[in-house]
Amino acid sequence: MSNNWTKSFSEAARRTRPSPVRELLKVIRQPGMISFAGGMPAPEVFPVEQFAEGAELLRTKADLLLQYGTTEGYNPLREFLAKWTAPRLGREVSLDEMLLTTGSQQALDLFAWAMVDQGDVVITEDPTYMAAINTFSNHGAEFASVPVDGEGMVVANLPALIEKLRKDGKKVKFIYTIVNFQNPAGSTMSEPRRKELAAVAARYDLTIFEDDPYGYVRFDGQHLPSIFSFDGADNTIYAGSFSKILSPGVRIGWVSGAKEIIRQMTVFKQTTDLCSSPITQILTHEYCRKGYLDSHLPNIVANYRVKRDAMEQSFKKHLAPLGVTWVKPEGGFFYWLDTGRIDSNDLARRALEKKVAILPGAPFCINPEAGVHASRINYTYSQPDVIEEGVTRLAQAVEEMKIPAK
Amino acid sequence: MSNNWTKSFSEAARRTRPSPVRELLKVIRQPGMISFAGGMPAPEVFPVEQFAEGAELLRTKADLLLQYGTTEGYNPLREFLAKWTAPRLGREVSLDEMLLTTGSQQALDLFAWAMVDQGDVVITEDPTYMAAINTFSNHGAEFASVPVDGEGMVVANLPALIEKLRKDGKKVKFIYTIVNFQNPAGSTMSEPRRKELAAVAARYDLTIFEDDPYGYVRFDGQHLPSIFSFDGADNTIYAGSFSKILSPGVRIGWVSGAKEIIRQMTVFKQTTDLCSSPITQILTHEYCRKGYLDSHLPNIVANYRVKRDAMEQSFKKHLAPLGVTWVKPEGGFFYWLDTGRIDSNDLARRALEKKVAILPGAPFCINPEAGVHASRINYTYSQPDVIEEGVTRLAQAVEEMKIPAK
Repeated sequence: MSNNWTKSFSEAARRTRPSPVRELLKVIRQPGMISFAGGMPAPEVFPVEQFAEGAELLRTKADLLLQYGTTEGYNPLREFLAKWTAPRLGREVSLDEMLLTTGSQQALDLFAWAMVDQGDVVITEDPTYMAAINTFSNHGAEFASVPVDGEGMVVANLPALIEKLRKDGKKVKFIYTIVNFQNPAGSTMSEPRRKELAAVAARYDLTIFEDDPYGYVRFDGQHLPSIFSFDGADNTIYAGSFSKILSPGVRIGWVSGAKEIIRQMTVFKQTTDLCSSPITQILTHEYCRKGYLDSHLPNIVANYRVKRDAMEQSFKKHLAPLGVTWVKPEGGFFYWLDTGRIDSNDLARRALEKKVAILPGAPFCINPEAGVHASRINYTYSQPDVIEEGVTRLAQAVEEMKIPAK
Repeated sequence: MSNNWTKSFSEAARRTRPSPVRELLKVIRQPGMISFAGGMPAPEVFPVEQFAEGAELLRTKADLLLQYGTTEGYNPLREFLAKWTAPRLGREVSLDEMLLTTGSQQALDLFAWAMVDQGDVVITEDPTYMAAINTFSNHGAEFASVPVDGEGMVVANLPALIEKLRKDGKKVKFIYTIVNFQNPAGSTMSEPRRKELAAVAARYDLTIFEDDPYGYVRFDGQHLPSIFSFDGADNTIYAGSFSKILSPGVRIGWVSGAKEIIRQMTVFKQTTDLCSSPITQILTHEYCRKGYLDSHLPNIVANYRVKRDAMEQSFKKHLAPLGVTWVKPEGGFFYWLDTGRIDSNDLARRALEKKVAILPGAPFCINPEAGVHASRINYTYSQPDVIEEGVTRLAQAVEEMKIPAK
C-alpha cells in the first residue's frame, strides 16, 4: 500500500531502534525454552489476595477511581511514599518534592524532557539499563561512560572524564546511576562511592538521576543510604518503583527531588499522558495503607534469594570450571557473566539453539567493548530446578565455543 | 536552597507552559463555585456496578493483571476495538494497525515523537484542543490554522495555506482535526468536508491525525463515517478514547492507522512508559466483552443530552438577548460562546467574581484573534438547575461588561 508515513517520519523516528530484548522475547515463547533473558517478577510472589482486598473500592470509591486524577498523583499514596522512603532518603520529602509516574520508565522520559537538548552529554555506568539509553537518546542525548566494578560505578574516573568533555566543548547535563543491584551488572555502589559521587556532582555543578527500582530487593547485608541522602546541595533526583516490590501491572513509579525539577516533570506529564490511573494508584495505596507492602516484601526477597542461591550454585558447578567469572549480586534480578574471550552475541545464539535464552551484553553498553564478552542472566523468573537445567545447557554452549588460550 | 536544576533545564522546559486550565482548576475548588471550566465526565454516568463486576479478575487472572503487559496493548481488547470501531472506520483494522495508549493524550505525544522535527508545521483548526497544541509544541512544532464554522474545519482554506507555507520553505507535516463535537468549538465536520479533507491530504502528500474522543457521545442526528474511512491512500490515523464513554480513570485510548506509523509509535511507547496497565486494560475488556459498552452508552448520552438541552434553554433565555451567539453542539462536552466585542479574559475574571468558572478562548487558539471574544463552556458536569443558575450569573457578568454599539 502506498502511503506517506515513512517519508514523513521525524529524525527521532529514523534514529530510534526497537528494544532488542522485546524482539528476542518473541523467540523465547518456543516450547521447551528456558528464559534467563527477561526482567519480569515471578508470578508466584504477587500478593494476589492482599491486593485484591482493595477491589471493593471499585464500588465504594468509584467517583475517584473512574475519574481523571491529578497530574501529580494520588495524594494519600504520595504521603505514604514520602514517609516510607524517608529512611532511605535521609528525610521525609514534602509533596511538592514528589511525583508519581506511569512506571519508573516514565520518570526517565519526563526527566529527559526537562533536561536534555540535542547534543547534551549524559554520563552513565557502562553497562547500564538499555531502555534508559534509548530514552535519553530519543531526546537527543549523547553519552559518555565510566565502568562498573564490584563496588558499582567507578566514581574516581568521573573528574577526568567531565573535564575532558568540557574541554571538548560538550555540555554535560547529568549523571545517571542505578545504585543498587545494577541492571545489568548486578553490583551495588558502596557507601564511600555514594558520598564521593554526591561530592563530584556538587563540585562540577552537575545533577544526578539515582535510579533505584531494585533497592528494596536485598538478600544479604544492610540497606545503604541513598546518594540523595548525601547530597546537601539538592542536586539529586531519586526514582523508585512498585514494579519489583508489588507489581509491574500497576504501572506506578515515583520520583523525589527538588521542587523545581519535580514541577518541570509534572508540566511535561500533562502533555505525555495527563495523569496516571487513579484505579491502580488507589488500589496500591490501599495495599500500602494496610501494611502489606512491608509485611509481604520479605516473601519476595526470600523467593528470589533461593533462586539467586540456586544460580550461584549452578554457576560454580558448571561455569566456574570453564573460566567464566561474575560478581555475586546481593539483591535485585541479574547476574552479569564475563565469558572471557567468547563473543556474547555468538554465545546467545548458540544458547538459543540449546533452548536457553540469555541477553548479550553489547546493547547495555555505551562503549560496545564493555559488553562484547558479557551476558545478562535473570534468575527471578525460573524455579531452582529449571535454573540448574538452564545453566547446564548454557555451560554446554560455552564449552563448545571455548577458545583455547594461546 | 541553591541547586543546579533551573540552569540545567532543556530548551523545551524553558519553552513549555503549564496548562492554564490546570491552574484555574485550583481556584475553582472554592465553596459555592459553579464550574463550566473543566471537561470531566459526570460521576453519575459511571457504570460502577458493571465495571466492578470484573473485580474478581484481580484474583482469577492476577498472573496477567499484575505482570508487565505488551507495549502494543492487551490483545483481546485490541480485537474487540477493531470490531467495535469497524462501522466508523469503514473496515475492521488488523492488530498491527492498532495500538492502545495511556489515554488518548499519549497518542498525541507518540504521534509527535514519530512525526515532528523542530520547525515542522502542524495545521490545526482554530480553535483546537489546548493540550494538543502544548504537546506538539514541546516537540518543536510550529503551527498554522484554518477556522472552524458550523460544519467544522473550513477545509476550503487548506490548499492556499499549504501552498503558501511550502512557498515560504516550511515543512508541513500533518493536519490535526477533532472531527466530532470539536473541543472547544462544539461543531462537527460535515460528510462532504471529511471527503474533501481526505482528498486534500492525498493531493498534497500529507497525513491526518483524526482525533475523536467525543464521537460516540451524539445527542442528535446520525453518526458520520470517519475521515479514515474516506482515505483510500491510508494516510489518516484515527484516535479514540474510553475517557468519555466509560471512564477517564482507566487511562486507555487507541489509535488505528497504517502499520508503519503504528509500529513507530509502539517503539516510542517502549521508552515513554513501556506498557499501559494490564489491570485497567483487562477490566475494561471484561466490561466491553459483556456488552456493557454498548448497553450503557445510551445512558451517558441521555444524561448529557438533558444537560445540553438545559444549557441551550438557559442560553436562549439569558444570553441571546445580550447578543451572545453560539453553535448548538450535536454531542460532546462543550459550547463555544461568541460574546461579540467583550474580551473573554476579562469576562472569565468577572464571571469568577460571580462564582462561575468558564475558560477564555485564547489558549485554545493558534491565532489569538480567533479566541479573544470566545469562551468554552462545559455542560456535562453540572446538574440542570446548577446550569440555569450558572448561566444566570454569567449573563450578569456579560451584561455588566457590555460595550454599547456605536
